[in-house]
Amino acid sequence: MKIISSALELKQYLREQNGTIGYVPTMGALHEGHITLIKEARKSDEIVVVSIFVNPTQFLEGEDLDKYPRRDEADKKICELAGVDVLFMPHAKELYFDDEVKVCAPNVRGYVLEGATRPGHFSGVLRVVMKLLNIVNPTNAYFGKKDAQQLHLIELMVKHYFLNVNIVPVDTVRDSDGLALSSRNVYLSKEQREEALKIPKSLYKASSLVSQGVLDVEEIKEEMLQILKPLEIGYVAILSREFNVLQRVEIGNTVILVEALVGKTRLLDNVWL
Amino acid sequence: MKIISSALELKQYLREQNGTIGYVPTMGALHEGHITLIKEARKSDEIVVVSIFVNPTQFLEGEDLDKYPRRDEADKKICELAGVDVLFMPHAKELYFDDEVKVCAPNVRGYVLEGATRPGHFSGVLRVVMKLLNIVNPTNAYFGKKDAQQLHLIELMVKHYFLNVNIVPVDTVRDSDGLALSSRNVYLSKEQREEALKIPKSLYKASSLVSQGVLDVEEIKEEMLQILKPLEIGYVAILSREFNVLQRVEIGNTVILVEALVGKTRLLDNVWL
Repeated sequence: MKIISSALELKQYLREQNGTIGYVPTMGALHEGHITLIKEARKSDEIVVVSIFVNPTQFLEGEDLDKYPRRDEADKKICELAGVDVLFMPHAKELYFDDEVKVCAPNVRGYVLEGATRPGHFSGVLRVVMKLLNIVNPTNAYFGKKDAQQLHLIELMVKHYFLNVNIVPVDTVRDSDGLALSSRNVYLSKEQREEALKIPKSLYKASSLVSQGVLDVEEIKEEMLQILKPLEIGYVAILSREFNVLQRVEIGNTVILVEALVGKTRLLDNVWL
Repeated sequence: MKIISSALELKQYLREQNGTIGYVPTMGALHEGHITLIKEARKSDEIVVVSIFVNPTQFLEGEDLDKYPRRDEADKKICELAGVDVLFMPHAKELYFDDEVKVCAPNVRGYVLEGATRPGHFSGVLRVVMKLLNIVNPTNAYFGKKDAQQLHLIELMVKHYFLNVNIVPVDTVRDSDGLALSSRNVYLSKEQREEALKIPKSLYKASSLVSQGVLDVEEIKEEMLQILKPLEIGYVAILSREFNVLQRVEIGNTVILVEALVGKTRLLDNVWL
């Protein structure tokens, strides 16, 4: 496995290779969810590139940028074992510039749900993803469905800016207890983890209601909120895959999203129906 | 010459061609300045693509979007005679989307000079240029030095977002009387045109002062303002090529810019020293 930290060196190196490039951008602290993304890339593409970059612009003032889990050595081993060809570990000073041209999240879809709790977060995400996609110039880029709004906004950016990349959504990976994998799960105490399980439980409940023919959005939300008590809820939303508000679940075109605070840890989960 | 209006069709078509692509983005109403850009592309590149698109997002409320000169038939002939291979004439509804991810001009360099008079103008320019560059995916893209700030911001965008394109600055073309060519010159009456000549005259004066060894920026500006009287001045600025403020002219690293209002027509000109 080649480890490259310079964006220009990576660009040069990849230009000289032949074959499709599968790209998995990450913020490190790799878990089974990331490994699944890498495996998907390994299945479809000839060259697999992973990046590890804790992107400062997507953290708001007072968020966990400084204490975000960093495990470079373990991450390198994980990538090597997963068959990654190139690991890209750039420095912020090569990716960001003074008085920069910016990419900004859409006024509506970038500032609802996660974007309402964290205004500006998605502008930072899109900004770095635009840079990274242009550096790597991949055939396919793999993103987890767990960050559903992020995935949707990246798909919009690709469409709006005619980027030459195919975005591949990959199913969420869960621990055996049902909790969606997230690098932030390490923040949870045992008791908090138990509490956090209410999130996937609420989504299973929603799925099972829908499979029983309950399609009314308010009714489903009500049942979910009962299960989620007494967690502090960021949002419970039932939307179309285009992130429009639904009155009734449309099977094949619905995503149900939950954000909840467990202790000080903000957890996301969702299910696609 | 092939005329294509669909972005996706153009993308597909260009992907199937071999050879370097030279690209000249325009808003139409083509004049000798544009033809010079096309000739430069013709000299260096195997496939020459010109686009004509009057980009709505770079016009502010109340500006001349609706009356901006449009001469599609004449423009087509000019392109054909200049040896253009592909003329791209997209529709706004294919380039723009509802609730869009945006590209935003830098907070400082996007809001001085032209950007101070027309706040938001450069965000619109960068937004459309990012789209167009991704659609055409050119080897070289040609921009006139006349729009020096625009050129500088596009160069910044290419750098900040690691775009795979070489930006080629092309010298300003002038009429025999010295006026820099611009599609907006058609707005000028005979008397206004005479007045407008004060703009290039002030720049010639500046150049000649510098060649005599006068390097003090305030002294040069003062002389320029004398010549420009009684025009309404947008700005007279003497900057480094990186658009930083200078106290003294640095030969090889200076651009002197003028914006003035002649009647209702805003004219730009500059000289690179």
